[in-house]
Amino acid sequence: MSLKNDRFLRACRLEPVDRTPVWFMRQAGRYQAEYRSLRERYTLLEICREPELCAQVTALPVRQLGVDAAILFSDIMVPLGPMGIDYELKENVGPVIENPVRTLRDVQALRPLEPAEDLPYVLETIRLLVRELDVPLIGFAGGPFTLASYLIEGKPTRTFIETKTLMYSEPTVWHQLLQRLTDGVVRHLRAQVEAGAHALQIFDSWVGALDPWDYRTYVLPHMRRLFAQTADLGVPRIHFGVGAGHLLPLMREAGGEVIGVDWRVPLPVAWEQVGEGVGLQGNLDPVLLFSPEETLKARVGAILESVRGRRGHIFNLGHGVLPKTPPDALKRVVEWVHQRGGDER
Amino acid sequence: MSLKNDRFLRACRLEPVDRTPVWFMRQAGRYQAEYRSLRERYTLLEICREPELCAQVTALPVRQLGVDAAILFSDIMVPLGPMGIDYELKENVGPVIENPVRTLRDVQALRPLEPAEDLPYVLETIRLLVRELDVPLIGFAGGPFTLASYLIEGKPTRTFIETKTLMYSEPTVWHQLLQRLTDGVVRHLRAQVEAGAHALQIFDSWVGALDPWDYRTYVLPHMRRLFAQTADLGVPRIHFGVGAGHLLPLMREAGGEVIGVDWRVPLPVAWEQVGEGVGLQGNLDPVLLFSPEETLKARVGAILESVRGRRGHIFNLGHGVLPKTPPDALKRVVEWVHQRGGDER
Repeated sequence: MSLKNDRFLRACRLEPVDRTPVWFMRQAGRYQAEYRSLRERYTLLEICREPELCAQVTALPVRQLGVDAAILFSDIMVPLGPMGIDYELKENVGPVIENPVRTLRDVQALRPLEPAEDLPYVLETIRLLVRELDVPLIGFAGGPFTLASYLIEGKPTRTFIETKTLMYSEPTVWHQLLQRLTDGVVRHLRAQVEAGAHALQIFDSWVGALDPWDYRTYVLPHMRRLFAQTADLGVPRIHFGVGAGHLLPLMREAGGEVIGVDWRVPLPVAWEQVGEGVGLQGNLDPVLLFSPEETLKARVGAILESVRGRRGHIFNLGHGVLPKTPPDALKRVVEWVHQRGGDER
Repeated sequence: MSLKNDRFLRACRLEPVDRTPVWFMRQAGRYQAEYRSLRERYTLLEICREPELCAQVTALPVRQLGVDAAILFSDIMVPLGPMGIDYELKENVGPVIENPVRTLRDVQALRPLEPAEDLPYVLETIRLLVRELDVPLIGFAGGPFTLASYLIEGKPTRTFIETKTLMYSEPTVWHQLLQRLTDGVVRHLRAQVEAGAHALQIFDSWVGALDPWDYRTYVLPHMRRLFAQTADLGVPRIHFGVGAGHLLPLMREAGGEVIGVDWRVPLPVAWEQVGEGVGLQGNLDPVLLFSPEETLKARVGAILESVRGRRGHIFNLGHGVLPKTPPDALKRVVEWVHQRGGDER
C-alpha cells in the first residue's frame, strides 16, 4: 500500500509536513446533498452494512473537500449490536436503547465481539477503501466510558445521572462493564487496522462530564489497557474528548499519539497540558462554519498561527460537522489550511 | 438588620469563619416533597408572583437543611417578561420562547426594566424574607450571554448554533442585545439589594460553550460593565458558570468577589487560575448525592481538605440540586461541612 498523500500520518508521527493536514469529524453527513438524498432510501445502519455504498459515502467528502484523510463511515454503536445490545439511532436524538444495561446480569449477558463474523461488512468496506483512496483511512471506536453512558442511560443525557450513580454505587458492575466494552473496542480497532486502516480515532466524546478524580478511578485503567493493547498495531491513535480540557493530562497518560481537543481550549494551552511528544488535533468551533467568510478565515488563521512551527498539528473541528453547515465553508477551510499551514516554512 | 449567622458573608469577604459556609444552588426545588405538592397547585411563575408563598418556598430549605444562606426562589427568565419577552417554562425542557430575538428590530423592541413597577412581587418577597431569615439572602440574575442564548435559540440548546451565528454574523445586533440585557440585569440586581438582599449571584451558566477568544470579544465587555455598575452596592457578587474552567481567568477579569465553579475543575486548580483575592464557591458533583454515604462523605471531605486553611471557600454543588436527589444526602453534606470545615482550626 502506498499513499499519494501521507501528510496526515506524518503529522501524527510528529514528522515534518509540507502543509498542515486537515480533515473533519463527520465529514460524511447531512450537510451533503448527496448524503441527504441517500438517507431518503437507506438508514445510517443500512449504509454501514453495504460495503460498496459505505465506501462511496466515506470517499465522497475526500474528493469534494480535498481533505487529507478519510474516516470510515460508521457509528460508535455499530459494534454493540453483535455484543447483544438492541439499539436504535433516532433522528435528532441519538442512540436509544430500550433495555438499558444496569445490573451485573445485564453486563454478563454481553457477548464478546468477533469482528470477522460480527462485522464482516465493516472490514470489507475498509478493504475496498484502502484500494481506492489516495489518503489514509481512519478507523474508529467509541471510548468505553462514552459507550457505557449510552448503555446505562438508554439515551443521550445532559446529567449522566444513571451512569455516574452506577459508577459510584456499583463499582464492580461498572468495572466489569467497562472491561467488556474495552475488550470489544480493542478487538474492533485491531480488526480495522488488520483490514487496512492507517490510523485510529477513539471518540471518548462525553468523558468531559467527569472530574479528574472520577476519570482516574473509573476510566483511566480501562483507557490505558485500550491503548496498551493496540500499541503493537503501529498506527497512530487519536484520543478525542469534548469539553475535556480539564482531563488533558490524564488523557495523555491514558495514551494516544495525538490528542483531539474541542474549541474551548486554545491549542498552545492544550499543548502545555499534554506536554511534548504528542500531536494535537483540532480545534475550530463547528459553528464558525456558519460565520461570514472574513470571520472564518481569521479564526482558521489564528489557530494555524498559534501553533506555527510546531510539529504534530492536524487541523480539524472541535466536534463533528453540524447538519446545516454550508459545504463551501468546509472547502474554503481546507484551502486556507493548505495555503497557510505547514511547519517547514 | 443583624444576621444571626453571617459566615457566608464573611467567607465571601475572605474573612475568617468558624465553619465553612454551605448552601446549594436550587436548594428549593423538586427534590422536596413540600415543593412538589405546592407545584401541583401553582406554576413556578405563580409562586414567584406571590410574595408570601415565594418567601415560604425560599425559606423552607434553610430550616430543613441548616444551610448558611438562602437564595431567592425565582428564575433567570423572570425579568425578561416585563422587558417584552413572551416565554414559557416548560417542564423537563426549560425556557421556550415562541418568537426568538434575532434581528435589530427584535432587540430594539425590548423595553427597559423598571423593577419597582415590573417586579414588585420580587422586591416584596425580599423584604419579607430579610425580616424573617437568620441567614443572608442571595439575590440573583442570569448572565447576559446565558439570557441571550435563550432569547436567540428560543429553547435550550446543545450547540448554541443560532446564538453564535448571530454573534459572528451580526455583531452590532449582538452587542445591542447584550447591552440591553446587561442594563436589565444591572437594574434587577440593584433593586434586589435595595430591597434587602445581602449578596448576589450571576448565573452565566452556559458561557462555557465559548472559547476564550469569543468570551473576550462578545461577552467580557458586558460582564465588566455589569460588575462595575453593581460595585457600589457593597455586597458580595458570586460569578458562576458551568463547564467554564477554560474561562476562569477571564471570568475573574470580568468581576465578582467569588467565582462559582462546577465539579470539573478541582478547587486548588481553579484557585491557581483565578489568583489571590477572590473567593471560590463549589464544587461537589450533584450526582454524588445519589452515591453511597461513604462515597459522598469521602468526596465532601476531599473538597474541604483540598482548600484547608484557605479563606474564601463557600461549599456548594457544581450545579443545581437534581430533582430526584434524596433530601437526607443534602442534610448530611451540611453536617459534614460544618463538622470539618472552617479555616481557623
